Amino acid sequence: MSNQILLAPGPVQLHPEVQKILSLPMIHHRTPEFDTILKSVLTNLKFLFQTKNSVFMHSCTGSGGMESLLINVLSPNDKVLAIVSGKFGERWADMAEAFGAHVHRLNVEWGYAANPNDVANFLTKNPDTDIVMTQACETSTATAHNISELGKIISKTQALFLVDGITALGAYPLPMDNYFIDGLVAGSQKAVMLPTGMSFVSFSEKAWQKIPNARCPKFYFDIQKENAANKKGETLFSSNVPLIRALDFILSRIKELGLEKHYAQLRRRADYSRSMAAELKLTLFSKSPSDSVTAMNLPADIDGVKLREYLEKKYLLTLMGGQDQLKGQILRMGHMGYITDTDMHETTLRIAQGLIDFGTSLDLEHITNASKKYLKETEIK
Amino acid sequence: MSNQILLAPGPVQLHPEVQKILSLPMIHHRTPEFDTILKSVLTNLKFLFQTKNSVFMHSCTGSGGMESLLINVLSPNDKVLAIVSGKFGERWADMAEAFGAHVHRLNVEWGYAANPNDVANFLTKNPDTDIVMTQACETSTATAHNISELGKIISKTQALFLVDGITALGAYPLPMDNYFIDGLVAGSQKAVMLPTGMSFVSFSEKAWQKIPNARCPKFYFDIQKENAANKKGETLFSSNVPLIRALDFILSRIKELGLEKHYAQLRRRADYSRSMAAELKLTLFSKSPSDSVTAMNLPADIDGVKLREYLEKKYLLTLMGGQDQLKGQILRMGHMGYITDTDMHETTLRIAQGLIDFGTSLDLEHITNASKKYLKETEIK
Repeated sequence: MSNQILLAPGPVQLHPEVQKILSLPMIHHRTPEFDTILKSVLTNLKFLFQTKNSVFMHSCTGSGGMESLLINVLSPNDKVLAIVSGKFGERWADMAEAFGAHVHRLNVEWGYAANPNDVANFLTKNPDTDIVMTQACETSTATAHNISELGKIISKTQALFLVDGITALGAYPLPMDNYFIDGLVAGSQKAVMLPTGMSFVSFSEKAWQKIPNARCPKFYFDIQKENAANKKGETLFSSNVPLIRALDFILSRIKELGLEKHYAQLRRRADYSRSMAAELKLTLFSKSPSDSVTAMNLPADIDGVKLREYLEKKYLLTLMGGQDQLKGQILRMGHMGYITDTDMHETTLRIAQGLIDFGTSLDLEHITNASKKYLKETEIK
Repeated sequence: MSNQILLAPGPVQLHPEVQKILSLPMIHHRTPEFDTILKSVLTNLKFLFQTKNSVFMHSCTGSGGMESLLINVLSPNDKVLAIVSGKFGERWADMAEAFGAHVHRLNVEWGYAANPNDVANFLTKNPDTDIVMTQACETSTATAHNISELGKIISKTQALFLVDGITALGAYPLPMDNYFIDGLVAGSQKAVMLPTGMSFVSFSEKAWQKIPNARCPKFYFDIQKENAANKKGETLFSSNVPLIRALDFILSRIKELGLEKHYAQLRRRADYSRSMAAELKLTLFSKSPSDSVTAMNLPADIDGVKLREYLEKKYLLTLMGGQDQLKGQILRMGHMGYITDTDMHETTLRIAQGLIDFGTSLDLEHITNASKKYLKETEIK
């Protein structure tokens, strides 16, 4: 147990080739070499988003991308329905309010997915709703919402459907156009497998109808200006050269592998983690578990904050705990990034050892064998 | 001439140790290891800014930092005096207008520094001015403004003095508190010697009086929320782990060397470049040349766009040309980043060779000797 393992739901472990690319000598973003990379990346992002519309890059964290998605279509006093099922839903609703929207919060019990019928009913009663927004996966509860069903419902109304895909896009199928998503955001340090520092946004034609008239003041995140710059083969502001070079590698790799096979790898990791949770005598927190992150309920007599710190210091294992109302109650394990079978197996053993050290009775040998067997039988060639 | 040399005014060449740090395995930003780094960086940024106030970090380009500086103190309809002496002055004035300010542009001929008396006169006639803003160095013209004098004048009024120090802070003395600067922004890919992706902002006590009442809508760049997060030992949003780790190295290194010696290195590079410009029979464009970047006028019969592309392709030398009205007329060479004497000497020879190839008559042997002599005689031990 000498190596550090990072299985948080972002930031994620980096592919060795990404680490190499990040350490390359700097090049300027106004050079023929970078022009080629930028062109490739802007094309391949459309493949990842599964959209025919343009995808744009911002130098910012995921939250900056959420802001871009929102303020490019929002005007003060617009009516927003925000699905709030955890910390990131709360953040986005707060953000919409900060920009002057009238926000109705559809509060969903943490760990549950939103019921599409509730959204349909709200929109029937409130046909003047301008925007419906939700996380695809609510990271704080490891819960996947039914984006496909929500998209169908919202597409029949005047409302735009904005989706935070930060812990989803690149981890499991989220085809923007097929799902009638009007605004979609992804983040570099999650399923895009890079360090923190970039977010990616795309808008549907329905959204583009609204963009020129959206009256939230903006400059850094002005998507019309970014679009004009991209059309000239540039980014609007200084390009994040190291991350864009690494992104080119990641996107080419996913394209070569194919989305299906790429998603199958993540699904296998998620299935493995759920299966191992049972071996560890832990139940799953979410009633609609995401393939990007798994949340496990801890036994009532274990302080999750202490366990997480203990795993970090004693066993060099970085997982995340619960946030806000879930503090100390759950462990969250990410399935995104560069993760080997050895990482997964080691993670299971380290959690098991941690739980044993905290007084849980577990059969380490049995768990070791179960883990090895699972990984062997499900191996993807 | 086998190696690429990047002497643009940002992004800059990276220190080998920075390249190494950027390729390290990812760690999470909620770990004891990162906590220590964050604490160190937030302390040492105050040293770089020479301020007793807090310095904050945003994941964004320099333009994002300019937006943060502005919108955290601005309310719609505020009166702003914007010194516009080049492309970045224009950008900031446009930005203030996008956020609803009444902007008076103090237009200064490109290549000249603003006359502090003009600012004093404006403020006497317009005592209700809320904000005066300027670049410390206008990158597009390689021109340094008299920040010390402007600060004295503005400090006697109600107006806040906002300074874009992106191509200045870390390159030459810009002591925030001593110069009565109320808001100062720096960028990672310039004098902070890192890749693009972060900006750094700080506000004076006079500015902090205004921040709670500033009515521009904001969320991603909300400095009150960032301040609260920093006080808890966190960044508001996901931390840019690779850049912050590298920043820790850069700041520790500058601190160890001392600001004076660090600035002396940049001044020497600027002096060298001015001296070599004369050897190359080129005049300086700026009437107030900055120590961070030098702009040289090209002979009228040389197309600067073509020369720049030629130097890039044939001699592996990345310099920048002129922007907008200066397109094709000047060459700009940065003095920031990790630059060896060999880089500087090679750059002079490559420009000389390029000019010769474009029909200028130059004595290459004489230039070689002059460059060697200058570098030897001015060496900093």
